[in-house]
Amino acid sequence: MKIIETKQAPNPRRVRIFLAEKGITVPYEEVNLMKGALKTPVFTKLNPVQRVPVLVLDDGTAISETVAICRYFEEVKPAAPHLFGEGALGRAVVEMWQRRMELGLFFYVSQAFRHTHPAMAHLEVPQVKDWAEVCKVRAIEALGVLDAQLAGHKFVAGDAYTIADITGLVAVDFMKPARLTRPTDLKHLDRWYGEVSTRPSAKA
Amino acid sequence: MKIIETKQAPNPRRVRIFLAEKGITVPYEEVNLMKGALKTPVFTKLNPVQRVPVLVLDDGTAISETVAICRYFEEVKPAAPHLFGEGALGRAVVEMWQRRMELGLFFYVSQAFRHTHPAMAHLEVPQVKDWAEVCKVRAIEALGVLDAQLAGHKFVAGDAYTIADITGLVAVDFMKPARLTRPTDLKHLDRWYGEVSTRPSAKA
Repeated sequence: MKIIETKQAPNPRRVRIFLAEKGITVPYEEVNLMKGALKTPVFTKLNPVQRVPVLVLDDGTAISETVAICRYFEEVKPAAPHLFGEGALGRAVVEMWQRRMELGLFFYVSQAFRHTHPAMAHLEVPQVKDWAEVCKVRAIEALGVLDAQLAGHKFVAGDAYTIADITGLVAVDFMKPARLTRPTDLKHLDRWYGEVSTRPSAKA
Repeated sequence: MKIIETKQAPNPRRVRIFLAEKGITVPYEEVNLMKGALKTPVFTKLNPVQRVPVLVLDDGTAISETVAICRYFEEVKPAAPHLFGEGALGRAVVEMWQRRMELGLFFYVSQAFRHTHPAMAHLEVPQVKDWAEVCKVRAIEALGVLDAQLAGHKFVAGDAYTIADITGLVAVDFMKPARLTRPTDLKHLDRWYGEVSTRPSAKA
């Protein structure tokens, strides 16, 4: 078993944090996405949508998509911590917040990066600057929703640290290369960020 | 318990199909998203990101995000059909394909619609036409990936009908209002579409 990744990219980091929180060790194989490693026929066979990370099982089965990889390990090792939540309602709430963090925040930060950064010009063709501007606004709006949630909850999805915190943390950190500035008046977000970014897993 | 929805919108349809496949009946409450129903303080309290559908439980707990609502019902009624897959690998594969259908296809079709359709001009501000053009290309690329998968599998995620088929079906049907034309050379996609669109659930 191995995980093919590009260490610098945000989605592989989500998987690394998840595995660190679960106490699972998997060997990593680094590929350089900036140098076309995801466009090769071999890699495309592993993941037809040409993204990292990809989990390759011992029999050659390839699982891509960050959350799918995390879910595989949650199912394989269902013991605590329950990073996808517990019980029907708990799992639904985690799924809801994981999606809000991913589709409402991480995605927009990522798109702002991809559609403005010069280094992405050969991967994101064409870069649409007006779209990047929309994404920046949406990302800041999402931070407001997150701050309001964190006013009443220790973590993104409630009392326990979950995959929603991982996606939120990686999204907030990805704001820096995306050249997005965090508003200074989001005190609950600041408190939460201080907590999740100093967990040992954040350095994984 | 009730589901607040706008019947015409694609995400509520995903939930209706899911519940039909599971044999679960939930009362629906219609709201008109075109007339600002999602912007009211009451609705915003239910879902701060102002989207339908929202599942409201008897105690008032609100769950939004289509896949989170579906997962709630899968957990409440885990008996077959297992629309999120079975076993660690099975669930990971379904998650992977559900995400490919959602992030790689449904999302782009939806963005093409939102950023071009005159009826969306007051909801998607600003509409970015150049972004819509990018989305159209990405959606067609995703159909190619889907066609290749369906060349070797009866359904999107393998041998069994799952939530990935639901997202795929709704995405393909949403191409019409988004004014996207399906390429005529995707024979495996055509075969699959003929099958999933004639299941009774497709009319739910």
